[in-house]
Amino acid sequence: MNESDFVGRDVVSIWDFSREELEFIFDRTSEIEKSGSPRTLEGKLVALLFYEPSTRTHSTFEVAAQRLGCATTGFSAPDKSSVAKGETLHDTIRMYEGYGADCIVVRHNLMGASRFAAEVASVPLISGGDGSREHPTQAMVDLYAMRKTFGKIDGLRVGILGDLKYGRTASSLCYGLSNYDVEISLIAPDLLAARKETLAALAKKGVKVRSTSDVKDVLGSLDVLYVTRIQKERIPDPTEYERVRGLYKVDLELLRQGKKGLKVMHPLPRLDELANEIDGTEYAGYFTQAAAGVPLRMALLRMVVS
Amino acid sequence: MNESDFVGRDVVSIWDFSREELEFIFDRTSEIEKSGSPRTLEGKLVALLFYEPSTRTHSTFEVAAQRLGCATTGFSAPDKSSVAKGETLHDTIRMYEGYGADCIVVRHNLMGASRFAAEVASVPLISGGDGSREHPTQAMVDLYAMRKTFGKIDGLRVGILGDLKYGRTASSLCYGLSNYDVEISLIAPDLLAARKETLAALAKKGVKVRSTSDVKDVLGSLDVLYVTRIQKERIPDPTEYERVRGLYKVDLELLRQGKKGLKVMHPLPRLDELANEIDGTEYAGYFTQAAAGVPLRMALLRMVVS
Amino acid sequence: MNESDFVGRDVVSIWDFSREELEFIFDRTSEIEKSGSPRTLEGKLVALLFYEPSTRTHSTFEVAAQRLGCATTGFSAPDKSSVAKGETLHDTIRMYEGYGADCIVVRHNLMGASRFAAEVASVPLISGGDGSREHPTQAMVDLYAMRKTFGKIDGLRVGILGDLKYGRTASSLCYGLSNYDVEISLIAPDLLAARKETLAALAKKGVKVRSTSDVKDVLGSLDVLYVTRIQKERIPDPTEYERVRGLYKVDLELLRQGKKGLKVMHPLPRLDELANEIDGTEYAGYFTQAAAGVPLRMALLRMVVS
Repeated sequence: MNESDFVGRDVVSIWDFSREELEFIFDRTSEIEKSGSPRTLEGKLVALLFYEPSTRTHSTFEVAAQRLGCATTGFSAPDKSSVAKGETLHDTIRMYEGYGADCIVVRHNLMGASRFAAEVASVPLISGGDGSREHPTQAMVDLYAMRKTFGKIDGLRVGILGDLKYGRTASSLCYGLSNYDVEISLIAPDLLAARKETLAALAKKGVKVRSTSDVKDVLGSLDVLYVTRIQKERIPDPTEYERVRGLYKVDLELLRQGKKGLKVMHPLPRLDELANEIDGTEYAGYFTQAAAGVPLRMALLRMVVS
Repeated sequence: MNESDFVGRDVVSIWDFSREELEFIFDRTSEIEKSGSPRTLEGKLVALLFYEPSTRTHSTFEVAAQRLGCATTGFSAPDKSSVAKGETLHDTIRMYEGYGADCIVVRHNLMGASRFAAEVASVPLISGGDGSREHPTQAMVDLYAMRKTFGKIDGLRVGILGDLKYGRTASSLCYGLSNYDVEISLIAPDLLAARKETLAALAKKGVKVRSTSDVKDVLGSLDVLYVTRIQKERIPDPTEYERVRGLYKVDLELLRQGKKGLKVMHPLPRLDELANEIDGTEYAGYFTQAAAGVPLRMALLRMVVS
Repeated sequence: MNESDFVGRDVVSIWDFSREELEFIFDRTSEIEKSGSPRTLEGKLVALLFYEPSTRTHSTFEVAAQRLGCATTGFSAPDKSSVAKGETLHDTIRMYEGYGADCIVVRHNLMGASRFAAEVASVPLISGGDGSREHPTQAMVDLYAMRKTFGKIDGLRVGILGDLKYGRTASSLCYGLSNYDVEISLIAPDLLAARKETLAALAKKGVKVRSTSDVKDVLGSLDVLYVTRIQKERIPDPTEYERVRGLYKVDLELLRQGKKGLKVMHPLPRLDELANEIDGTEYAGYFTQAAAGVPLRMALLRMVVS
């Protein structure tokens, strides 16, 4: 396998990547983290079409593109753009191809938008997250951070705590982990329990899964506790949100009940579910995780853009 | 005529450009489409001051500037800027000149704003569209696309369908076409019929004009059917908009009644007035047209910035 | 003193800079104004985190960074970013450091936000204005413009007119001026009179201060009349704003009562408090002042980023 095998590839679902491909991407990410990258995309253009607010995904793609020598264009606020005039995703994609984009990144609130956009685009399309299911580059960042921290992913016991119903990072991470020999504990209040499709997918891949609503049931065995934010903006009913907010909170008192070497991860941003007091401690893995966002996206851009 | 003749020129109205100048600009655009352009504006700065939302005009100017080596700055959302604090256009223009802008692009909702801005600025000012009358660079893109498609503009029969009252691209295109030996059919529902000033201007230039509210009256003779969106955001009265929306729609069934070689153009974004089914057919000229937006604006920037 | 002495310095308050340091910064600014600067920060990244709307501060930092060869990233509209999801300033700062920012610029509506951010960040943090007290780079621009206009700051008689209660530029300028042998006249309607802390600080430094609500009391002796806008967005009570708006206005008739060589300065944007008729006259110092915004920020960035 080499980088040119990926030229033209879309990145719209973590499902589309084999374990071998993921490992290849992580190797490239690791090289970039250590030594940077030549500006191999000098003169290229990446369009960042963000139909949903996002600080970190937008900024990491922007910085990744710049570090490779690319220019960027696009929008990060749909109400300011032609979207407000009613333009379809189809036309917008065609448009940015016409402007010379060599790669298009789409973030969208609707499930399947990235897949649809990829079918329209003749250049590589990368999802920056869509709907409540897919956030493939975030899942890659998460997996990469686990590999970096523990040396390998096989053998890890990973607890995923939080909003497993509406959270797309949790969903994509589960699928990504299913390529490895891991044990997954799904920890969520009943109202936010994992969707059946996620459970079915994991079962089909033969992943060992435990489900519980109480983190203490599984904490003692975990290597990684992956905490997610309740996705207020994706919960259809405000009263439903009010019933679940504050239902879980990870702090030092809780973590001390875990086993030695336990690492806490979080896709960020966090609200109350992750106490600030963890930041300076050996438990905190989330800032390292976040920092991988730029080199991983550099690796992807460098590989898919010809 | 050579490029340096244009140094320092403002681009605020299609009226200000002679046929000879337009053709010269189109020749440069064509060269850039074929071979790109050297980065002759390395180290220069273009200020993009967008007082109205715009995806495509903003992105094409941004990409054009970047491809020439320019940096860009400015704003694309007036409520986020000093405009929200009440600053006048005059002061904002002076400000960006002070920051070292070598060229200023203004898009504004008020008619005449670009002309006023050009009087304030000592550097070249390019309109990105203002009010309901002028969008000179869009008209240039449209004319260029016609020339590219048909080899020349003289002799064409052009139908302009849609919102001829509030649409600035239709208005600017009429003025641009008046430099050529063309026949123009103005096709609009009565409520959106062309303004008297447009008709007077075309008459003065001796352009053959037909007006009708039914596209079928003229379709059989047209080489180009230029369709425009109803400018909901410029129609003062919401009930007026409700009465005209959906009044016309161009689809394959209609186009098959046209003559051989008929091309459909549209400044985009489109709503319902232009059926998606046209996209893949020989009728569809609008994506080619849109793609000319970057090289044409590159040509203009390269010529007016010293 | 040389540039490398400033590497890693935060710029969060004008108080943190000695007279000698200010003069050193102004010398660098002057060199850059005359000859530009080598692109010594090629490959570096500046994060612009703007929690408040700002055209001019954002654009000047952006242009300054670009002219030094830096890339920029960040946001200029908090409602479009993770801030809308409730992320803390602490996490956002950590995040952008993780993304490789070599310098972070923060503008915030809360007093002390920049200082707090600087404590979190390990890279240099520059305030783009926070709360109603501090706007250190604006104060440096103002002082630099006075030095440039009059040759030196010592000996100047400076009147500061306007909103001395909520205006952070007025506040920062007072502190900056206190390093010099100047006389300050504070001119404000009673409702907008200077805060006690400002008066106390000036007294402690031994600056001669006169306070008045009528500009005519002091106009005859002034070298500089520094006019500020009423900070509508910072006045807690709308009825309070209504009572003070329009309470002062500087026009040519007033200025003719001043002494020879009187210069009017203003941080801009202006509303009604400064008549446009002054623009073309010898009194107008504000556009020169504004133009210093880019080279001064270039000097700062070049000095603090290693």
